[in-house]
Amino acid sequence: MFIAEYIKMLDKSYLFPSDALEKILSLIPNGVTSERLNLHECYGRVTSSDIISPEDLPAFTRSTVDGYAVNSLDTFGAKESSPIYLTIKNEILMGYEANFTLMRGEAASIPTGGMLPPGADAVVMLEDIQLVDKYTIEILKSVAPFENVIQKGEDIKRGEKVLSKGHKLRYQDIGALAGIGIKEIDVYRKVFISIISTGDEIVPVDSPVKIGQIRDINSYTLTGLIRETGSVPINRGIFRDDYNEIKTAILNSLEDSDIILISGGTSAGNKDMTADIINDIGKPGVLFHGVAMKPGKPIIGGVISNKPILGLPGHPAAVIVCFNRFVRPIIEKLMGIVSEKNFLKKVTARLTKSIASSAGREDHIRVYLEKRDNELLATPILGKSGLITTLVKADGIVIIPCDVLGINEGEKVEVMIH
Amino acid sequence: MFIAEYIKMLDKSYLFPSDALEKILSLIPNGVTSERLNLHECYGRVTSSDIISPEDLPAFTRSTVDGYAVNSLDTFGAKESSPIYLTIKNEILMGYEANFTLMRGEAASIPTGGMLPPGADAVVMLEDIQLVDKYTIEILKSVAPFENVIQKGEDIKRGEKVLSKGHKLRYQDIGALAGIGIKEIDVYRKVFISIISTGDEIVPVDSPVKIGQIRDINSYTLTGLIRETGSVPINRGIFRDDYNEIKTAILNSLEDSDIILISGGTSAGNKDMTADIINDIGKPGVLFHGVAMKPGKPIIGGVISNKPILGLPGHPAAVIVCFNRFVRPIIEKLMGIVSEKNFLKKVTARLTKSIASSAGREDHIRVYLEKRDNELLATPILGKSGLITTLVKADGIVIIPCDVLGINEGEKVEVMIH
Repeated sequence: MFIAEYIKMLDKSYLFPSDALEKILSLIPNGVTSERLNLHECYGRVTSSDIISPEDLPAFTRSTVDGYAVNSLDTFGAKESSPIYLTIKNEILMGYEANFTLMRGEAASIPTGGMLPPGADAVVMLEDIQLVDKYTIEILKSVAPFENVIQKGEDIKRGEKVLSKGHKLRYQDIGALAGIGIKEIDVYRKVFISIISTGDEIVPVDSPVKIGQIRDINSYTLTGLIRETGSVPINRGIFRDDYNEIKTAILNSLEDSDIILISGGTSAGNKDMTADIINDIGKPGVLFHGVAMKPGKPIIGGVISNKPILGLPGHPAAVIVCFNRFVRPIIEKLMGIVSEKNFLKKVTARLTKSIASSAGREDHIRVYLEKRDNELLATPILGKSGLITTLVKADGIVIIPCDVLGINEGEKVEVMIH
Repeated sequence: MFIAEYIKMLDKSYLFPSDALEKILSLIPNGVTSERLNLHECYGRVTSSDIISPEDLPAFTRSTVDGYAVNSLDTFGAKESSPIYLTIKNEILMGYEANFTLMRGEAASIPTGGMLPPGADAVVMLEDIQLVDKYTIEILKSVAPFENVIQKGEDIKRGEKVLSKGHKLRYQDIGALAGIGIKEIDVYRKVFISIISTGDEIVPVDSPVKIGQIRDINSYTLTGLIRETGSVPINRGIFRDDYNEIKTAILNSLEDSDIILISGGTSAGNKDMTADIINDIGKPGVLFHGVAMKPGKPIIGGVISNKPILGLPGHPAAVIVCFNRFVRPIIEKLMGIVSEKNFLKKVTARLTKSIASSAGREDHIRVYLEKRDNELLATPILGKSGLITTLVKADGIVIIPCDVLGINEGEKVEVMIH
């Protein structure tokens, strides 16, 4: 029997996180609607169509060195011991058209980036010539055709695809688009995410806390997490554990958001209520209720008319894990990201203490990182999981997959940086 | 003779990049001025003072499970085979003060997060009790003092330092501050960075390109790079290679910027001019002119009255390398970041082709990444370095330090993700 089958036997009641996530992803679109933006606003946005170059880059054959533009045939056989003499024809200036034709036996001085005149097909570098007088140079080294030049259209050809649909724009991409004169492009609009905080005991950060109450930590954490993805958080406020209040908050959120997060929606008092409200509002409704993951086991996942809606545990550590494991990939699909090269920030470190894990459960362990003897060490942060300070001390997370029973001290682990 | 000394002998005219950077860093402040911001605006900003907790967290002793609050002494010796009987006193509700005292022999139902009443010091989980009738429960398992509770102030004590000065705020930090009722904090203001594009041949992206001219690629790339750090780009426009025009642009930039970048400031035509203008304007002026690095060798670094000013090569690939190697650490110092845990985005990959490098030079090699057989492979991108497409194809950079002569095919390398 395979370990995965064995694990499934162990706990049939909870889906693996990957299977649960897939249920949501299969029901939501690749990318929301798109908008046309000025290139300066596009950093970090995602292309909503292929981008085709409207022109050749470079628009003319240019020199990649400071030197003399020549016809390469004229330099054939040139050596320091037997230089070839050419007549200086002209000086090519940066930024101006080379509006003359270079004849055989002639050379024209040219700066890096300067335009080659018709008749020239290569450039001899300054260090490979010797000035004889005002009118003549010695060529000390031959050049091949197109040596030290970039030909017209060699970089990007008119009509060529420069970027594919679904590409998250990096700084070098923005520069490339500027280079071919594209000043506006179509990108997916930002993803809007409503945060509904629930719980009779939750009070806003700027209210005094009465005995028995606690402050709204999670909407602040979620706001930071959402901002980091480039999406837009909409804080809808704090709601009592009341069916109609929460239902109204979800209905309002469905009108202007792409994703709805219900913080505290899985607590003992209202987990069934959250699921009932989701099923009450629309189809397909709740897709899973609880996953084989720690922390974050009680997460509720659903979809209402293509919009994902998640009930997150109230526990601050679980909120972060649920966001990174479920909400982040959902956001990335709605952002329209297609590339598999969407690397997360992570480091490799050596584990200083063994971590145990239950079979069939995906464990997310907070670790503290420190450098010692030029090696990065990861120490699991133990202690009660309800403590905020353990979150602040943590530098990242080590994930132990469902089919792994633990990691031994001394092993190398990948740490997702928080 | 050590290799580093040998290398220094090889090329005395150029500083190592690390030494050149240090010259600038030693002359600029740790952090610019600070400002007071609402917590919701603080994600990614850097604390400009230590943050001390104004209150205890939690503000009261709370349960971490659903169960019954008890006096742990009353459960001593309880087992399934010999349960202990307690009288149900009360139901503690979420968000309300437990305004009664639990007497010996009593238990009160309590939800996760609920407040322990005076007299109780632990909670027995629901699965470890059995309801006998409306008034009585059986305790099937003993609890130790403080088991399943978080004591008042256990997480964070009033007067305790929560975050140190110089800490870049992550989402979990924002949540922690909300938890202790801090709604505004002092952070360093954003760093303002002027971009001065120079070159007679450079035209704006929205102008038609005449033969001989090229579009302003670098100010777009730099804008993206600056935005990524959380700083504010100020595009000052494109200037001709004219001493007075560029001098005026720098003088204007000194008034409202923390860093000044002169794109194209090291090209053959004006490299001496850029250095002369910097020295002309103020002290200490130019600190280095050229470093042992490829690409990016001609970079000019200077400081005028504590403000860093850099002349960057016009070459788009060199601009990115110079930014990441020099400008990014300068920005981070001005942002006030103290932590050494400011991890960059990088991955480990296996090199598919050997890379040669000259002794005494730091080489930045662009690579393409692909996954094959569950392993990440990095392939150096060859071809003319002036091509924009090589930048777009690249996923990251492999750095070969000054004292390494090359990396062999098959070796593992760290790739800084672009």
